[in-house]
Amino acid sequence: MEEVMIEAQKSIERYRALIERQLKSFIRRSHPKPRFLAEPVEYVFGNRGKRIRPILVLLACEAVNGRGRDALPAGMAIELLHNFTLVHDDIMDGADSRRGRATVHVRWDQSTAILAGDELIALAYRALLETRSPRLRPIVESFTRAFVAVCEGQGYDKEFEVRHRVSLTDYMKMIDQKTATIISAAAEIGGLIGGGRGMHIGALRAFGLHLGRAFQIQDDLLDVIGDAPQIGKPVGADIASGKKTYPLIRALEKAKGVDRSLILRVINRNGARPPGVKRIRALYEEYGVLNDARKAVQRETEKAKRLLRPLPSRQGRAALSYFADQLMQRHS
Amino acid sequence: MEEVMIEAQKSIERYRALIERQLKSFIRRSHPKPRFLAEPVEYVFGNRGKRIRPILVLLACEAVNGRGRDALPAGMAIELLHNFTLVHDDIMDGADSRRGRATVHVRWDQSTAILAGDELIALAYRALLETRSPRLRPIVESFTRAFVAVCEGQGYDKEFEVRHRVSLTDYMKMIDQKTATIISAAAEIGGLIGGGRGMHIGALRAFGLHLGRAFQIQDDLLDVIGDAPQIGKPVGADIASGKKTYPLIRALEKAKGVDRSLILRVINRNGARPPGVKRIRALYEEYGVLNDARKAVQRETEKAKRLLRPLPSRQGRAALSYFADQLMQRHS
Repeated sequence: MEEVMIEAQKSIERYRALIERQLKSFIRRSHPKPRFLAEPVEYVFGNRGKRIRPILVLLACEAVNGRGRDALPAGMAIELLHNFTLVHDDIMDGADSRRGRATVHVRWDQSTAILAGDELIALAYRALLETRSPRLRPIVESFTRAFVAVCEGQGYDKEFEVRHRVSLTDYMKMIDQKTATIISAAAEIGGLIGGGRGMHIGALRAFGLHLGRAFQIQDDLLDVIGDAPQIGKPVGADIASGKKTYPLIRALEKAKGVDRSLILRVINRNGARPPGVKRIRALYEEYGVLNDARKAVQRETEKAKRLLRPLPSRQGRAALSYFADQLMQRHS
Repeated sequence: MEEVMIEAQKSIERYRALIERQLKSFIRRSHPKPRFLAEPVEYVFGNRGKRIRPILVLLACEAVNGRGRDALPAGMAIELLHNFTLVHDDIMDGADSRRGRATVHVRWDQSTAILAGDELIALAYRALLETRSPRLRPIVESFTRAFVAVCEGQGYDKEFEVRHRVSLTDYMKMIDQKTATIISAAAEIGGLIGGGRGMHIGALRAFGLHLGRAFQIQDDLLDVIGDAPQIGKPVGADIASGKKTYPLIRALEKAKGVDRSLILRVINRNGARPPGVKRIRALYEEYGVLNDARKAVQRETEKAKRLLRPLPSRQGRAALSYFADQLMQRHS
């Protein structure tokens, strides 16, 4: 098994580098002519993202015995879609920095960030249409479903900000739309381009959905247990801003008495100062919600990995499985 | 000829009503679940727009002997794309009202307007994908070209706001991207769905481009010579805000001495107060730039109509020709 894993790691790193080069070249080729637009679009792709979603498109393509490279344009499209959501969400959330750099609306202004986001999603479709496949319709359909879902997921997220009662079920529905559908579409589209059979496409789509859930809960966890320089923001930032995350919602479900009052205060006041953040983190430990979150990440990752079994390529399955484990163990 | 025209008018009105019904039903079917999104999306389509672009899609389809109804989903997609640009442009331009109603970011807030715009473009692709046609690839390609073009056209428009020297050539390049490409895509996509031959598709695309130019210059004209209640904004609003329109750029090209200084003052100060607006309008008359604009509208409309000659359907040609004339003579 060891050797298969080394092979998987190598091919992931090779793909990451390939995607990075192709993205740069696509942006150069599609250079928007007005300077007003060109500079922020280039800036966004200098962000040294992890390129998780496009790697997934390529690995999924290979897992059904397709050629990973054939999925490159679609991989870029998914990464462009993802970056569009980051630019617009950062405006809506009033976020000043991302991965240690100023956000587009801070570095330029709101109009620039709105338009740059719009251009990114337009370029995403342009990239997607460079895909050579007889299955263009289901590919564009899957991509568009993910696009609609991220918009609606963000709608729920904004709604949750002003809603005091959000259940874990509401939260899961929100992250399915906001985070998991795009990861699910990445896997599905890779399978479609690779020429996979219907049942394999379905398996990849479900794999992506569970992986996406695990990914988001892990993200919520990293806010509490992560390392500030690695996650590119202060630890506990979600608590400080009163964001309704997996641990916070779970803690509210479990806590009683004064502990519950403290959590409700953070929610009602839309955040907490450093002493409050510290107390909430202590409550997280006390009620074991970090362990609950870790278990949820593990459970969703395991579900995802089990779904890979019917896929035809042994090496492809191993690579996706390895990739899923890596995501679960990531520190940023 | 008289009878053909009556027939054309009837079919345009029939299509307008049909599009209006279908849009309402599509929005109901595609109802975004978060209320945060559903309300503004519905609000946008209560705007009683003229539905020019979707009508064009259906007429173009008929002009190559296709069935107009087959082009309905694509027509809705074009209208959704157009409305997406309105919602986002209104934020960037700080516009408070449109067609006598509060804009989305004024009625709700900026975040809502950003996200509602994003949802509109996502729904546009969803509508486009309801098209049943073996030519899905060129259809989605044409649509995406228009999407990229409107973003880049808006980029130029924002650039022009802070640039003091804008030539008529620059201006035409900007309106080609911001306004004409979407009208061109409407005609092209209608032709593709109707099963038109390559040369007919090309003719329709060129027809739309010239029609789009005429449309935008007419829009600029209406700001000066229109009737406030009909255009839904005060007459001279473009001058008051220093917007670089066809008449203003043309006047700058022709005027000398103090007249030129006055125009440059309006440009450098990004607008004028009512007495300044009145003087600029007087200059427009004096230098005959309104006539120049009228002639440009007529020239582009005539060019557009000549391009229709090779199209196979006589009734279809007549309807497009009649539609072009109506646009040129419109008062709002």
